[in-house]
Amino acid sequence: MSSWGNGIKISVFGESHGTGIGVVIDGLPSGEKIDNEELLLQMGRRAPGKDKAATPRLEGDFPEILSGMLNGTTTGAPLCAVIRNTNTRSQDYGNILTCPRPAHADLTGYIRYSGFNDIRGGGHFSGRLTAPIVFAGAVCRQILSRRGINIAAHISSIGDIEDKRFDGTDIPTELTDRLSKAVFGLIDTKMEEPMRALIEECRMSQDSIGGTVECAVTGMPAGAGSPMFDGIENVISSIVFGIPAVKGIEFGSGFEGSRLRGSQNNDEFYYDGDTVKTRTNNHGGILGGISTGMPIIFRTAIKPTPSISRQQNTVDINEKKDTVLEIHGRHDPCIVVRAVPVIESAAAIAVINILKEVNKL
Amino acid sequence: MSSWGNGIKISVFGESHGTGIGVVIDGLPSGEKIDNEELLLQMGRRAPGKDKAATPRLEGDFPEILSGMLNGTTTGAPLCAVIRNTNTRSQDYGNILTCPRPAHADLTGYIRYSGFNDIRGGGHFSGRLTAPIVFAGAVCRQILSRRGINIAAHISSIGDIEDKRFDGTDIPTELTDRLSKAVFGLIDTKMEEPMRALIEECRMSQDSIGGTVECAVTGMPAGAGSPMFDGIENVISSIVFGIPAVKGIEFGSGFEGSRLRGSQNNDEFYYDGDTVKTRTNNHGGILGGISTGMPIIFRTAIKPTPSISRQQNTVDINEKKDTVLEIHGRHDPCIVVRAVPVIESAAAIAVINILKEVNKL
Amino acid sequence: MSSWGNGIKISVFGESHGTGIGVVIDGLPSGEKIDNEELLLQMGRRAPGKDKAATPRLEGDFPEILSGMLNGTTTGAPLCAVIRNTNTRSQDYGNILTCPRPAHADLTGYIRYSGFNDIRGGGHFSGRLTAPIVFAGAVCRQILSRRGINIAAHISSIGDIEDKRFDGTDIPTELTDRLSKAVFGLIDTKMEEPMRALIEECRMSQDSIGGTVECAVTGMPAGAGSPMFDGIENVISSIVFGIPAVKGIEFGSGFEGSRLRGSQNNDEFYYDGDTVKTRTNNHGGILGGISTGMPIIFRTAIKPTPSISRQQNTVDINEKKDTVLEIHGRHDPCIVVRAVPVIESAAAIAVINILKEVNKL
Amino acid sequence: MSSWGNGIKISVFGESHGTGIGVVIDGLPSGEKIDNEELLLQMGRRAPGKDKAATPRLEGDFPEILSGMLNGTTTGAPLCAVIRNTNTRSQDYGNILTCPRPAHADLTGYIRYSGFNDIRGGGHFSGRLTAPIVFAGAVCRQILSRRGINIAAHISSIGDIEDKRFDGTDIPTELTDRLSKAVFGLIDTKMEEPMRALIEECRMSQDSIGGTVECAVTGMPAGAGSPMFDGIENVISSIVFGIPAVKGIEFGSGFEGSRLRGSQNNDEFYYDGDTVKTRTNNHGGILGGISTGMPIIFRTAIKPTPSISRQQNTVDINEKKDTVLEIHGRHDPCIVVRAVPVIESAAAIAVINILKEVNKL
Repeated sequence: MSSWGNGIKISVFGESHGTGIGVVIDGLPSGEKIDNEELLLQMGRRAPGKDKAATPRLEGDFPEILSGMLNGTTTGAPLCAVIRNTNTRSQDYGNILTCPRPAHADLTGYIRYSGFNDIRGGGHFSGRLTAPIVFAGAVCRQILSRRGINIAAHISSIGDIEDKRFDGTDIPTELTDRLSKAVFGLIDTKMEEPMRALIEECRMSQDSIGGTVECAVTGMPAGAGSPMFDGIENVISSIVFGIPAVKGIEFGSGFEGSRLRGSQNNDEFYYDGDTVKTRTNNHGGILGGISTGMPIIFRTAIKPTPSISRQQNTVDINEKKDTVLEIHGRHDPCIVVRAVPVIESAAAIAVINILKEVNKL
Repeated sequence: MSSWGNGIKISVFGESHGTGIGVVIDGLPSGEKIDNEELLLQMGRRAPGKDKAATPRLEGDFPEILSGMLNGTTTGAPLCAVIRNTNTRSQDYGNILTCPRPAHADLTGYIRYSGFNDIRGGGHFSGRLTAPIVFAGAVCRQILSRRGINIAAHISSIGDIEDKRFDGTDIPTELTDRLSKAVFGLIDTKMEEPMRALIEECRMSQDSIGGTVECAVTGMPAGAGSPMFDGIENVISSIVFGIPAVKGIEFGSGFEGSRLRGSQNNDEFYYDGDTVKTRTNNHGGILGGISTGMPIIFRTAIKPTPSISRQQNTVDINEKKDTVLEIHGRHDPCIVVRAVPVIESAAAIAVINILKEVNKL
Repeated sequence: MSSWGNGIKISVFGESHGTGIGVVIDGLPSGEKIDNEELLLQMGRRAPGKDKAATPRLEGDFPEILSGMLNGTTTGAPLCAVIRNTNTRSQDYGNILTCPRPAHADLTGYIRYSGFNDIRGGGHFSGRLTAPIVFAGAVCRQILSRRGINIAAHISSIGDIEDKRFDGTDIPTELTDRLSKAVFGLIDTKMEEPMRALIEECRMSQDSIGGTVECAVTGMPAGAGSPMFDGIENVISSIVFGIPAVKGIEFGSGFEGSRLRGSQNNDEFYYDGDTVKTRTNNHGGILGGISTGMPIIFRTAIKPTPSISRQQNTVDINEKKDTVLEIHGRHDPCIVVRAVPVIESAAAIAVINILKEVNKL
Repeated sequence: MSSWGNGIKISVFGESHGTGIGVVIDGLPSGEKIDNEELLLQMGRRAPGKDKAATPRLEGDFPEILSGMLNGTTTGAPLCAVIRNTNTRSQDYGNILTCPRPAHADLTGYIRYSGFNDIRGGGHFSGRLTAPIVFAGAVCRQILSRRGINIAAHISSIGDIEDKRFDGTDIPTELTDRLSKAVFGLIDTKMEEPMRALIEECRMSQDSIGGTVECAVTGMPAGAGSPMFDGIENVISSIVFGIPAVKGIEFGSGFEGSRLRGSQNNDEFYYDGDTVKTRTNNHGGILGGISTGMPIIFRTAIKPTPSISRQQNTVDINEKKDTVLEIHGRHDPCIVVRAVPVIESAAAIAVINILKEVNKL
């Protein structure tokens, strides 16, 4: 379903070309000042049209808060925010009832809901549904930031072009500050040019390209999380896979660590003053599902945008035969850029949930 | 926590050197014959001492079923199975109260539970707690197998040595049958020798090695799963990260797919008789969180065994100073081998949960 | 929290004098035609001002559906409906920050949310928040009705004046049809006059009066529900106590049954054709948490409206001293009348959840 | 299902005549000393044979703790306790496959589980399954008592014979201490004789009798609980209806309060030193689902023991015809007495859950 969480619960609703989309956030602490400019900044990072590498579709994406806030402060009651859909061109998608787009949820949504799902623009499966997630995350990260917890992600790769990785033992606030406001977030900003060139090349060849996003949570107190199924990895992955196009996640050294020896991958403890730290951070800030106090680091794999203009083979489910499809309309050749704030947001929601469970919020 | 699920709920309990470990499985369908030999076969695949590449610790690991079964058939009431702990040598772990073992949950467990956690043998964080998961999975996979759904995993890599991967469009029953009974499960059995040699080399050098496990679910009906936070990726990852040492998961082409173009990664649909299939399976059988009917494929990253005999730097939390640690006792230099049936089991439990949600069990 | 359910999840949001209130319903079956007139009819039964026994506050209460519906049919995606708040006179409630109204949630909300809760008109605790519940219930009851399951409640008492009770073994469709549309629902309509007279007397004496509501679910298939904590009683009570002013619930013979002997209270089974029925229905259609197929019957106790115009003793929490309070503004002297459709609605939501759990929807 | 809770989760398992019954308690705070004598005292209060008004079946009911405890202290990991079944006489129940006992779950369990449920002694629906609930409650109440929260219940009525009720504004510790250890708990101990006489009369006439149990939670901090569906009434009722034979629950003045006027039922606030209290306690310590700090008071209706020796009409589901049934074996003519510690236990578990949600444990 589109509801998630225990300590904090979010319920995301809406369809791409319906009346509106939004989110209810239940279980927020009361008395939290929420800065509206900061909310809009985060919404803007995800919004299409902010950046020439992104989709040409322009949206208002201005959320209206219906409840849970009074005088700019959370009341403790559920916070509902709604974004109305405007500027939708449903005719672009007129044929997908008959011909499911490859790598989209057209076919699975059709089977799951016996053909009653709203298929216009991908309906509830649309990437547009990440806007409410960013809204919810923007609220949560303000609450976390007040407690010294910061969340920042960057484009760690597009295709084969890679940004630097976080130094898991030293992530300065200047970096998290900069990244958490960036539209094209990179540690090594020199990579922007080649990455943009690759995206543009894909656009020109009627193709798309995938990438990875690396996310860090700094300031996490040690001892948060729980063993087994409520571990930090479980909680973060259970929400992050709610973001369309995410197909993989790894914490700390992850898949690379699986090639290493214990003597290479183990992070040795040492005292930094009174605090136990590790000299390396292959564990990604998590041991046994619980935070060590080191930055939490994870990377997600984002598949290439499924919508490409090239002709593709597919089926006609009415005629029950194979056919070819050309997708018209507006497509973002690389959704990795806009996925960055969405992943930060999912992390922020997850962290609030984790901290509430252990009475650390 | 150590409880998981909605349609089916499991509650895993126990500590490595306590009285016993076990699991309660709530929400099983009634009237399911459960073959006891098959249960023991699965338990045996995970049990240490079955294979010379595995740990020297010998365990009974014979589960006693306390409830939920009558005449070899599920009653529909919660099924509880208990495995008593025997042959434990707690003195091996005498020092870990003071000196947390690197890459273990000793330190985080200590902080999380204010020092009251049972630290003997890793306590509730021990790999031994995967035995109840295998038990629960062994029950679930019998129920699934009766419905034509089979689950099989293999060692896809140890260190840099790789097995072949599943052909995601064609996984014959002979292969899933063979793998789901194997102790050292490989698609290409010729890889056993070099892998064992690498493990032995690590043991001899007082070190350990990580790896990856690839898992396939065949026979999955199309249309199972739900959008966003109850997608198949979310559900599987939320349980799989409950297995100690798992640090990453990817579905279909996963991280590799993030390097591809849309035209390469998109799986084109075609009709095979009346059934819509895809010619490739980069989507891992899942689009929009929902099954396409193609095999579900995922890979997990397993970190190298944290316990190594080499001297390591750590801290003395009582003296509040840095120190060195030598871990004595019995250590499995590569837990990847025994992780295979655990990951299959987690997948089986997840799939039952997913099918129940959509009334397909 | 204000979220509820497993198979179906509802998330209710809003505050009495905020921007808007509403509900997200997640997990609805797709392809269900929803009749708009029928929705409005149900909303109208709860709306104030429909009946002279009710509150003078007039509301639009016209819900706008933002998502989850297309061409009058459910899509399977979350359905969100919003009702905007208009015609609020917040000045009436200007003093409750300082002086909590007796029997209201002013004080507890203030403590729970450290004074940040929206206290205008009761905020999130307001009876107005039952409008979204009625909306959700109105959707659910249409789905149930299509499957032969009908839900109807009536005013079983106001003060000491009692309506007849349901005959638990014979509830004709004509009765459930009539009651499920009624504004002042009674089995014995002759009781309307004395009940209205009592309500009017209370209003004139600046007082209020409580009552009970009896609800029946007919057409329930046998074998729905689960043992122990997911029994039908558990599920219904867990949502019904979400309705403000409900302070008790009993199923079947309930508290009266506790005075009886087994030989009086036991319902004997018999065959009516091929169907096992009971000759009496003291069990309220539920044994061991599971439906027998007989009508489900429960009664709820509704406390008298806490807002009365009479002067009452209370405290001034700013001055930290005792004081007296006169509540001005608009008060419904008997909320029992309008509680009837709310209780039916809660029952409808609960029944959908129960049926989904056992694959009977 | 037989699993319950969020902050704390319990999973109850077992069947009356199976191998064993028990409970897993997940989410307990660590470092809590648990007194074993106190556990056994509570188990003893529920155990049959402790009192001549109770059933002649003798049980060991000595729970074995398998996990979650070390040196008499909770570790924070799931606590599992098992009670083995002994002294079962299954032949007594030989016929219930064919002839469901009136007012039992034989028929509904049979339908729900397609005849695969363990029907011996009621299986998972047996009152014996309250033993694990008492165990879990006995652990929880020790934790609560350490925080000044005490839970005590008494037999408020058997048939028409009534005990005094709690004075909701003044419940001295001496009373809660006495009641929480009593086997035949009464406020007015003079009522024991007439109550026992009535029970004996029912036994002699091959009949049974119902009653009510009133429960108080004292020392509850103000501000615990949440609006709507996580209110204290919701949480308590959702677990209490998991106790077999409970058919009703009311908080504070409950059903009686529904007959009152607002001016009678409203509880006026006043200052007692720095603390806001109410002069009466018709609200049962709960307003808007949240605690006021006054004692929480609720009453439950317990139906008469369904098993009576008299001949009863029922059906033969194999022959598909009406028939008569005589139940042989051992029956407790009044389960109200033994229900007292079970209800206290359910309340204790609920309160832990409620306090964890608001970080007050």
